Amino acid sequence: MSLSERVAAAVDGARQWQRLMDMAKLGAIAGDGVDRACLTPLDRDARRIVMRWAEEAGATCSVDAAGNLWLRREGTDPAAAPVLSGSHMDTQPQGGRFDGIYGVLAALEVMSALQDSGVTTRRPMEVVAWTNEEGSRFGPGCMGSMAWSGHSEIETFSDSTDAQGLRFGDALAELLASEADVPRRALGGTTPHAYIEAHIEQGPLLEREGLAIGAVTGIQGSRWFVVTLTGDSAHAGTTPLRLRRDAMQAFVRVATALNTIMDDPDDVLRFTIGRLQVEPNSSNSVAGRVVFTIDLRHPDAAVLRARGDAILGVIEAAAGDVTIDLRETFDAPPSVFDPDLVSMIEQAATALQVGCRRMPSGAFHDAQFVNRVCPSAMIFVPSHKGISHNPAEYSSPEQLESGARVLAWTLMELAS
Amino acid sequence: MSLSERVAAAVDGARQWQRLMDMAKLGAIAGDGVDRACLTPLDRDARRIVMRWAEEAGATCSVDAAGNLWLRREGTDPAAAPVLSGSHMDTQPQGGRFDGIYGVLAALEVMSALQDSGVTTRRPMEVVAWTNEEGSRFGPGCMGSMAWSGHSEIETFSDSTDAQGLRFGDALAELLASEADVPRRALGGTTPHAYIEAHIEQGPLLEREGLAIGAVTGIQGSRWFVVTLTGDSAHAGTTPLRLRRDAMQAFVRVATALNTIMDDPDDVLRFTIGRLQVEPNSSNSVAGRVVFTIDLRHPDAAVLRARGDAILGVIEAAAGDVTIDLRETFDAPPSVFDPDLVSMIEQAATALQVGCRRMPSGAFHDAQFVNRVCPSAMIFVPSHKGISHNPAEYSSPEQLESGARVLAWTLMELAS
Repeated sequence: MSLSERVAAAVDGARQWQRLMDMAKLGAIAGDGVDRACLTPLDRDARRIVMRWAEEAGATCSVDAAGNLWLRREGTDPAAAPVLSGSHMDTQPQGGRFDGIYGVLAALEVMSALQDSGVTTRRPMEVVAWTNEEGSRFGPGCMGSMAWSGHSEIETFSDSTDAQGLRFGDALAELLASEADVPRRALGGTTPHAYIEAHIEQGPLLEREGLAIGAVTGIQGSRWFVVTLTGDSAHAGTTPLRLRRDAMQAFVRVATALNTIMDDPDDVLRFTIGRLQVEPNSSNSVAGRVVFTIDLRHPDAAVLRARGDAILGVIEAAAGDVTIDLRETFDAPPSVFDPDLVSMIEQAATALQVGCRRMPSGAFHDAQFVNRVCPSAMIFVPSHKGISHNPAEYSSPEQLESGARVLAWTLMELAS
Repeated sequence: MSLSERVAAAVDGARQWQRLMDMAKLGAIAGDGVDRACLTPLDRDARRIVMRWAEEAGATCSVDAAGNLWLRREGTDPAAAPVLSGSHMDTQPQGGRFDGIYGVLAALEVMSALQDSGVTTRRPMEVVAWTNEEGSRFGPGCMGSMAWSGHSEIETFSDSTDAQGLRFGDALAELLASEADVPRRALGGTTPHAYIEAHIEQGPLLEREGLAIGAVTGIQGSRWFVVTLTGDSAHAGTTPLRLRRDAMQAFVRVATALNTIMDDPDDVLRFTIGRLQVEPNSSNSVAGRVVFTIDLRHPDAAVLRARGDAILGVIEAAAGDVTIDLRETFDAPPSVFDPDLVSMIEQAATALQVGCRRMPSGAFHDAQFVNRVCPSAMIFVPSHKGISHNPAEYSSPEQLESGARVLAWTLMELAS
């Protein structure tokens, strides 16, 4: 039996599930949900529990200036670059029990399996819990991984405030003060050998296809737009249709035309009109103004560029006699994960006899920033009905165990 | 010179304009607008001024239990049924200077013209200012004419409250107490010989066609619907388009299909989607629910019935895999005005050499309730750009004078 096989076999799905359920008590909300925002007392409690479990697994704990929590289990070669895994522990306000925390606890489960099987890897193994991935208390998200990767200085986020007006900088200082007993660690500056992040899919594909594992090839790029169509509000009873400049009808024409250019036979492109506001929004008044959003995503930068750049022309051609304002509010190019790591994840799944497919990630993750520093990839496990950011978010104990086993195998291959 | 000609010639456009501008000072708001809600101190002041002008024109004043204000100028035959004209004096919160008050002051101008020319008609002439036509302070609108016509008892409106929680019944009692010196008159019970209401068009047709007068053939019928399309909200990044139940996309399909069945080559049908609400209305979430309104109007009851009844089938065919809820919230059949009165208005316009066309009214008016009691019709004058319920509402002094002349001629024909 190989070492990878031994450690994967030592993964204890019941223990992992119990830890997830214990964590879900911290910030539990109705319907099995969790509301545990970053840098809150609940978050501090959750970190203390993780630190205790890590110490039980033979790891030491440290924290960096961005509040990222590090758990390190030494290898036989102290000079070797560590193998890194992890995710985040904060949730959405109406969040579930698995988004983020699963990636931290699956990596911790690998440490516990190492401890239980008495295995010491060659490379050190590290688990990280990144600060504020969700961005729902303090914007933007992924602050911890952005600061660690050198994408942004942590100080640039200091003045971000939450709904109560509290500054991120003050909340972070409070966390660090509360963890004064935890050793400090430099923010960044070291390059891991590789990073593997386990996460729930947050989409329906794996469940639909009856597969246990997604070997994530990258994070698709996104372009976000806000479109304003301005016509004339008018009396719905008195104004003939041909004399109207009806912003709602312009929207219907524009949306229909956009659907045509966004058509993708492979169903990879994501095109969403999710937010729409009407003025005056009165049942007996012609709409004078419609403001709507476009969320466009694709893993291929060229496709994303071409389709996104085509939007204005399509709107101009379809809108008719209304005024058009188009603003691009976000433009994130695709992240492409390391192909060798993706192959290793596939091989681990094959060795463990669980179904696996390659897939891009539709959502953002810390891995896209870590990928700037070291080879990175992600392991997805199925999300029931694709539901996420919702108390109904669910993955079964067995699915979560399979994910941890594939993670264990992959990390073992990397750490040898 | 006929009597009709004499009285029409005695209409004083400058006096009428000055009275409109004097009235517009009561509740003046920015941009030449007026905010003078029914049963307010401003409304009471406006009524006192109208009563003074009426007395100067040889009329007596009275008020009924619904607060409708009546101005009566006796004829030579006291037993003859009176000829009635008028409209309302209340405005929308962001109203203009002409909607409603013009119909009262044009009828008053005819009385003044009679007085100036020393003419006594055979039939008595009455002017009425109906209570609460707009319905924007207390719902519904047209309370005064509904109560007078026997459509509804005035007491049924007593518990309607304004935004401050004041009851209509209490506000009405306060008005009546403030007018204790004005003679009381029975609410309803008398049948006028005919009713002619002058009003601004509130639509763009007369201006577009360069015509001075609309001879209003009736008030189109209305059917209002609220449609709820329920799909599944989902992550905009992770959920493939083919696996979505996207309520926004369902709306776009439904609206497109409805446009097809609502197509009217004559451009008489009015079809409006004016209000739309999305849940969760987040730019990166697929819409789980869209609620929108349909306002459908047509002067022909059969067309209104057929198109309205077709809506559900069209939505069902177009909506795809979402749940549909359709509620009809309002169903008002068309009002057809007296053809002889419409012809008389056309003849008056011809005699006075001003351009005239027949047209239905797109908006509601008190005339549709008066029409239940006695032969009724309306005279429209042009609205600049069709704007109404807005401070920018505008009709020129000359257009308003032409309307009053045609009203004078028509009332003279009726009163002889």
